[in-house]
Amino acid sequence: MDRIDEVLAQLPQEIVTRDQDIISAYTTDFRRHYTGRTTAVLRPRNTADVQHIVRACAQRHVPLVPQGGNTSYCTAATPSDKGDELVVSLERMNTVRDLDPANLSASADAGIILSDLQQAVSDAGLLLPLALGSQQSCRIGGNVSTNAGGISVLRYGMARDLVLGLEVVLPDGSLYSELSPLRKNNSGYDVKQLFIGAEGTLGIITAVSLKLARKPRQTVTAFLALKDISTLARILDAAQIQTGESITSFEYISDASLRLLLDAKDVLRHPLQEKSQHYVLLEATTVSPVLDLEESITRLFGELFEQGLIMDGTIAASGQQRAELWHLRESIPEAEVHHGGSVKHDIAVRTSQLAAFIVEASRIVERNAPGAIPSIYGHVGDGNVHFNLVPPALSDKVEFKNRLTREISPLIYQLTADMEGTFSAEYGLGRVKMDLLERHGALGKLRVMRILKTALDPKGVMNPGKVVA
Amino acid sequence: MDRIDEVLAQLPQEIVTRDQDIISAYTTDFRRHYTGRTTAVLRPRNTADVQHIVRACAQRHVPLVPQGGNTSYCTAATPSDKGDELVVSLERMNTVRDLDPANLSASADAGIILSDLQQAVSDAGLLLPLALGSQQSCRIGGNVSTNAGGISVLRYGMARDLVLGLEVVLPDGSLYSELSPLRKNNSGYDVKQLFIGAEGTLGIITAVSLKLARKPRQTVTAFLALKDISTLARILDAAQIQTGESITSFEYISDASLRLLLDAKDVLRHPLQEKSQHYVLLEATTVSPVLDLEESITRLFGELFEQGLIMDGTIAASGQQRAELWHLRESIPEAEVHHGGSVKHDIAVRTSQLAAFIVEASRIVERNAPGAIPSIYGHVGDGNVHFNLVPPALSDKVEFKNRLTREISPLIYQLTADMEGTFSAEYGLGRVKMDLLERHGALGKLRVMRILKTALDPKGVMNPGKVVA
Repeated sequence: MDRIDEVLAQLPQEIVTRDQDIISAYTTDFRRHYTGRTTAVLRPRNTADVQHIVRACAQRHVPLVPQGGNTSYCTAATPSDKGDELVVSLERMNTVRDLDPANLSASADAGIILSDLQQAVSDAGLLLPLALGSQQSCRIGGNVSTNAGGISVLRYGMARDLVLGLEVVLPDGSLYSELSPLRKNNSGYDVKQLFIGAEGTLGIITAVSLKLARKPRQTVTAFLALKDISTLARILDAAQIQTGESITSFEYISDASLRLLLDAKDVLRHPLQEKSQHYVLLEATTVSPVLDLEESITRLFGELFEQGLIMDGTIAASGQQRAELWHLRESIPEAEVHHGGSVKHDIAVRTSQLAAFIVEASRIVERNAPGAIPSIYGHVGDGNVHFNLVPPALSDKVEFKNRLTREISPLIYQLTADMEGTFSAEYGLGRVKMDLLERHGALGKLRVMRILKTALDPKGVMNPGKVVA
Repeated sequence: MDRIDEVLAQLPQEIVTRDQDIISAYTTDFRRHYTGRTTAVLRPRNTADVQHIVRACAQRHVPLVPQGGNTSYCTAATPSDKGDELVVSLERMNTVRDLDPANLSASADAGIILSDLQQAVSDAGLLLPLALGSQQSCRIGGNVSTNAGGISVLRYGMARDLVLGLEVVLPDGSLYSELSPLRKNNSGYDVKQLFIGAEGTLGIITAVSLKLARKPRQTVTAFLALKDISTLARILDAAQIQTGESITSFEYISDASLRLLLDAKDVLRHPLQEKSQHYVLLEATTVSPVLDLEESITRLFGELFEQGLIMDGTIAASGQQRAELWHLRESIPEAEVHHGGSVKHDIAVRTSQLAAFIVEASRIVERNAPGAIPSIYGHVGDGNVHFNLVPPALSDKVEFKNRLTREISPLIYQLTADMEGTFSAEYGLGRVKMDLLERHGALGKLRVMRILKTALDPKGVMNPGKVVA
């Protein structure tokens, strides 16, 4: 009996799944770039089960891969292809533990699907302000483990900014639990920070406490055609001033991305008469029933026109129109897939340098990979852009993408480093970006990461081969 | 030659101060509760000097005490009375390194005085939204090391929420530097989080990058007399809704604190006609030049009167009146000193339970320490209250306070623990609250803290005897 069988024999059989037909969904990553193997998927029912699993694995040096919704963009949640790791899916742990509207907080098991938690919070009259493309399938533990971003970061911050408390099973099976939803707590090191964004390499998050927000009473969604990309930061600033900092989303969409979209999906239409190279999807929200947000945005439009910063703009006149604008934004990744997929670069630089980054990176692509379509979009209000490269229509798409990865990505990442930006703004490292950390990581950072990993997981059982080795 | 002399002989003599007359300011804590000893104070001129010091000390196992403005409320910045530690003051490292208005960010040496950095930022047309009582003397590295709170946390968060990057000299003298002011960066563990709130026990912060805010164009400051403390959370909620979440400060002041103040300082006057047991100092700010904030607050007053939640209220009609209201709030600690000092409890519970905490804790004091004056005030918008006990007028004050510390503080802390609150919302642990962490700390937290301390500072040279042992 090998070590894995010994572990499995020790566990309650209700939580062990060995059926390879079922298992295959857990071993292939979200983007279908990587397929691993495993003997079994473990599906704990509660925190005690997770402790039981981790203790058994730690004793026998069997590595574990924690998995939420398996939506990592960097294959952080899939096992290696050696078949020597067990997958721990948190999917059965999906209840809301506590909802305190007066404290604007909620606690839930890590395995709850983000949209289910959003719904529970909404039913209580509040807003969980974490919103991302995969919210129908990602799970809150995974969101916290990757410090997820999304479309409301500008207003509400990253997942880290929403976490008030965590419960974590440590690599030796012991428990760290600090779930009390306090706004302020300086009683020692803020231990929970360690596990946020660690992608399951330092422990398994089993429950989270989150900050909630008041539900907006007004939402205004607008779509703008910009004269010039260099005015991005100026437009955001004007919008914040006009609305009293009520901007929740400020998303850039390049003309190339929009054209990929309209080409891929017949049902979508261009929202504006005037065409441009650069568009912004902007949303403002307020809890106030009296401040006139639509008037503020209309005034903003007037100001931007007058200053020659925008060529055209539209304000969604109904919930339907708002949904259409958001559908455009959220369908871009799918449109990229339709055109043969993309080589992605999840970049952040100073917001003050984002326009310059886009211009310079586009030049690099033009010069070195003629024909590549730069599908550029993202959360520019946070200085974050998805600078994705789609192969041209008539190319050998796989071959073209391989060449882009080999030849162009290093140039994009070097430009990012030269501008003191980051090669991973919100996706994390997973298995695929560890080499970038070696090459471009901050001074001394990798060394500290290794010290932390060794100290907390000396046996290396927790999601090995990801983030730090 | 002992080990300390060996270290001192190795260092540039310009940074070594042995004059005991000068040194005494560095060895007594802010509240004058503790006086330590040291052979020398080291005053590095730059990061290289700090590395030089730390390397020399690590080699010879000589412990170090990093010091900013020496304003810790928990003696985190003063050396022990054994005289075996060297003090490293960051005071000479006080330049602004970078100010990027379009990126809403600033970077500065850790030793800059908070109000100097505020001024530099203000001169650039922006706001550094960290504001606290000691801002004329505390230094930004210390603020970050204790994860300082203050009067604007409700709107802008704690120091942690403002930190975009850090430069830190690690306990072996090597450098971790990740100062680039990015809004989003998921390139590996968020290493900087470790040092925020670690009170200098894991390294010496030598520089920080901070988020800035736009300068408010309108400020409305108001003072309210509440009918009942149980409506605190409801009033804050109503204020946020009326103003579109423009509340920056929401500070509770008990009648007892107000009376201590008016008694101690002849120059102060009661801001209201109607007297109450409970007051709130509220400030709303907005960057918008057009939204009428004063109208919103006036409407709020009307609503609160109508619902019978407040008895009286005033809106500052001038900068002078605003300053007077804030002067009241900020003079409370001084008024406590005037009346013989106080035994402080820096408590946070859920905001939804704060009123219940105040009521119950007051009952405990009445029952067990008749005559003690509960001076209760603080940042109730964050669920944080300073529940301080002042000895009665005719008591032996030192003896009375000792008895309170011995007999009442444990009851207050037990109540806090029963309500899943924290015994240190913003002051940290320093040397004086370590036992509380042992008794009331979250499950598994102290264990993880010890693992981190041992891993990063195996020789125990970095601020020993503080936070974690």
